[in-house]
Amino acid sequence: MKPDSASFFGSSLTRENQFQDPAQFRAWFRANNRPESFHVREVPLAALEHWSLDPEGVRIAHDSGRFFRVEGIHVRTNFGGEREWDQPIINQPEIGFLGFITRVCGGVRYFLVQAKMEPGNINTLQLSPSLQATRSNFMQVHKGKRPLFLEYFNGEKPARVLTDQLQAEQGGRFFRKRNRNIVVEIDDDLALPAEFCWLTLGELKVLLREDNIVNMDSRSVLSTMSLIEDDTLAELAAGGASEVLPRLSENGRKYLNSFLSRKTVHSIDGLLSWYTGQKTAWFLDVDWKPLSRLEGWRIGEWAVEGDPRFFSVIGVDVEAGTREVAHWMQPLIKDVHTGMLAFVCQEIDGVLHFLVQAKVEPGHLDIIELSPTVSCSNYADVAQRSTRPFLFDELFDPHNRVHYDTLQSEEGGRFYQWQNRNMIVELPPGRKLELPAQFAWMSLGQMKEFMRYGLFSIEARSIISSISFVD
Amino acid sequence: MKPDSASFFGSSLTRENQFQDPAQFRAWFRANNRPESFHVREVPLAALEHWSLDPEGVRIAHDSGRFFRVEGIHVRTNFGGEREWDQPIINQPEIGFLGFITRVCGGVRYFLVQAKMEPGNINTLQLSPSLQATRSNFMQVHKGKRPLFLEYFNGEKPARVLTDQLQAEQGGRFFRKRNRNIVVEIDDDLALPAEFCWLTLGELKVLLREDNIVNMDSRSVLSTMSLIEDDTLAELAAGGASEVLPRLSENGRKYLNSFLSRKTVHSIDGLLSWYTGQKTAWFLDVDWKPLSRLEGWRIGEWAVEGDPRFFSVIGVDVEAGTREVAHWMQPLIKDVHTGMLAFVCQEIDGVLHFLVQAKVEPGHLDIIELSPTVSCSNYADVAQRSTRPFLFDELFDPHNRVHYDTLQSEEGGRFYQWQNRNMIVELPPGRKLELPAQFAWMSLGQMKEFMRYGLFSIEARSIISSISFVD
Repeated sequence: MKPDSASFFGSSLTRENQFQDPAQFRAWFRANNRPESFHVREVPLAALEHWSLDPEGVRIAHDSGRFFRVEGIHVRTNFGGEREWDQPIINQPEIGFLGFITRVCGGVRYFLVQAKMEPGNINTLQLSPSLQATRSNFMQVHKGKRPLFLEYFNGEKPARVLTDQLQAEQGGRFFRKRNRNIVVEIDDDLALPAEFCWLTLGELKVLLREDNIVNMDSRSVLSTMSLIEDDTLAELAAGGASEVLPRLSENGRKYLNSFLSRKTVHSIDGLLSWYTGQKTAWFLDVDWKPLSRLEGWRIGEWAVEGDPRFFSVIGVDVEAGTREVAHWMQPLIKDVHTGMLAFVCQEIDGVLHFLVQAKVEPGHLDIIELSPTVSCSNYADVAQRSTRPFLFDELFDPHNRVHYDTLQSEEGGRFYQWQNRNMIVELPPGRKLELPAQFAWMSLGQMKEFMRYGLFSIEARSIISSISFVD
Repeated sequence: MKPDSASFFGSSLTRENQFQDPAQFRAWFRANNRPESFHVREVPLAALEHWSLDPEGVRIAHDSGRFFRVEGIHVRTNFGGEREWDQPIINQPEIGFLGFITRVCGGVRYFLVQAKMEPGNINTLQLSPSLQATRSNFMQVHKGKRPLFLEYFNGEKPARVLTDQLQAEQGGRFFRKRNRNIVVEIDDDLALPAEFCWLTLGELKVLLREDNIVNMDSRSVLSTMSLIEDDTLAELAAGGASEVLPRLSENGRKYLNSFLSRKTVHSIDGLLSWYTGQKTAWFLDVDWKPLSRLEGWRIGEWAVEGDPRFFSVIGVDVEAGTREVAHWMQPLIKDVHTGMLAFVCQEIDGVLHFLVQAKVEPGHLDIIELSPTVSCSNYADVAQRSTRPFLFDELFDPHNRVHYDTLQSEEGGRFYQWQNRNMIVELPPGRKLELPAQFAWMSLGQMKEFMRYGLFSIEARSIISSISFVD
């Protein structure tokens, strides 16, 4: 391993980073959004070309053995309301690669985004990272189609690595799936195809306040970044608070304080003890089970489906005038219900703390992941409400301040129109909560520290990616 | 979770912490060492009471389903010399508990140790932590025998948690086994049974310079502690270096600098990128396979054995005049070869760095763990030497300084007389090494940071536990 360059970044602290011309961005986005050339229709499972359920009914897989498989699991746990159940799950053991290329011009950092249509996207087009690649693509194991700009991620062309972390995907839908989340900085000028463009972090944060524009992969990579640029930290350390603070919003000042302050409810060692205790308190046993034998599920002509409050597995036929492969079929996880992902936060002794939940989900590699205060897949479902602490009573109390409230989509290459409501809600200071053992207060700085080691769920990271100092 | 108290400790910085009366300790140790009342003899596998190989030859298990099982695995990886093999492995899915009780008296911290005879111990008696318990013991799930002093670990009696981390065991012998390593501080006077005594950290560090006295569980827990007490850090920060430094040995000053310095070869983000890259580069596929079908292994009358360069599984009959259960039988992993665990270190730009290896072993929960520069189970085996970088050429170069060189035992409750040579060897400054991608230089401070999150192997932690500022 070679010595690396120092790495902090973010341009979210300067108001100059808003769209220089929002209309121009909208025009580019519209030009890339061509639903008329991108047709997705549900087809019977048996009609899926190259995909099939084996005769024993064990799994749905691709003829080549590549991509992913839909398999069945039997789950037992002592966590939550439901203690034992069967469900389908996506098994895709390879580590994927999600990468942003960044470049600093005139003191402002730009991120290379790609406008990409995916079959599951509720609005066809969303912004994805500069690079999405499978491990085989990335390592160039097979002579396959080479992903664009790969050369800046595999060392062929010079680039400075800013962050590079293994991060998990949805533990309720994926079996132990993780992606390598990378951000690099380059000096080269790039010739961009029409579907790529440069956006500042400030612009991305503004777009994160809209529904379903910044896709899940982008949110995941954005969440791994340090929140504040080195220069600004230095400016603050040098007593430049009077310069920096006026540039921030009221929430921004709270976030900055929560990122930097050491006046936290718990120490890192204390949080590690809580985390260790949670890993010990809960168990999770997952066994493979054929799809055809899953209790409460049936394999129908059009779908593998169970209780209508949950998801189903469908097949789609995709015609894409704009993609290198113009026609394909694939299974997707269909979830028409809207989930709720929400962080409750509160100022405690003057420092904003977030209420983090140690949550068990069947696809977790190691029992628990640190999750939002509220995380459920269908918040209209009364049964889910009653077994989940904090779900409605706390979230929608009129005394709370809502910092953030949008709908965000999960990966359109695997999920059909699955949206989650993402919220940050601040409780009034002094309001005391009775916390079950699986909850702990953490400052933003502590959350970032635990995130580095891959301990936060995608649901939590999705919300964290929205945090901005200038909103 | 309740707010916790601040937590740093270690009394290794004061020369006063040597044995006040070494002869007294020796007498106590001798009094507890009664090999004449502790008899261990090998018996045929079929003669093991309550343990049996099932008719299909799948595994060796206890009638009750408790304790552990010896099972078979088929391993495939792209790491190291051997790429595909079969082997037996211990499967004990429960998290174990290892805990030290500490108490500060007259400004000095004392650790409660237990002199314990275990059937696999090469010298019968070693020092174990205050508490060893299974999850069921700890959680009091069953009405079982209650471990002594449990009340200080489960909240029944007041105690301050100093560290509390989940840490892995031997990935070559255990399947994803981890223990919760806890250190608590109490104020109570304790009435101690004869096999318990209080030792300072300084005394434990001196004992760690002898062969096979401080057992593996103790070394594991000791390694999780911060190296320096809060007071000393404050003293240093307040410019008290002239007070502190003369108390240290020459190596101690290097260790302290390596613990505190920020002049490191890599940043933490840079190391995380290397770590992420290593997790991506190597794969590990492990499938269960019946013991009776393991290639290269045979189930004999007295042992499950393979290539004599490796370990075997034997049965023992234990008669213990001193233990609550006076007679029992059990399988053990027998390894008569001596392994080599060694950290190579070097001053780079004035700061001591340790050469850390990202290593794949079949029992790892997540592909790699951070391991010593050299880690092999049989260093007399020429084949192992030739495929392992740094094994002999670097380690035994006469220009190196040997900081540490002892024999240490692995857990005597699972392993029969298995010893590893533990070494720390310092290369001359300026001597350049060609590093394969799986190696990276880390300062002691950085190693401690990664250790908190459970990323270091027991082999590495065993060596780290020996590090002392006053040797």
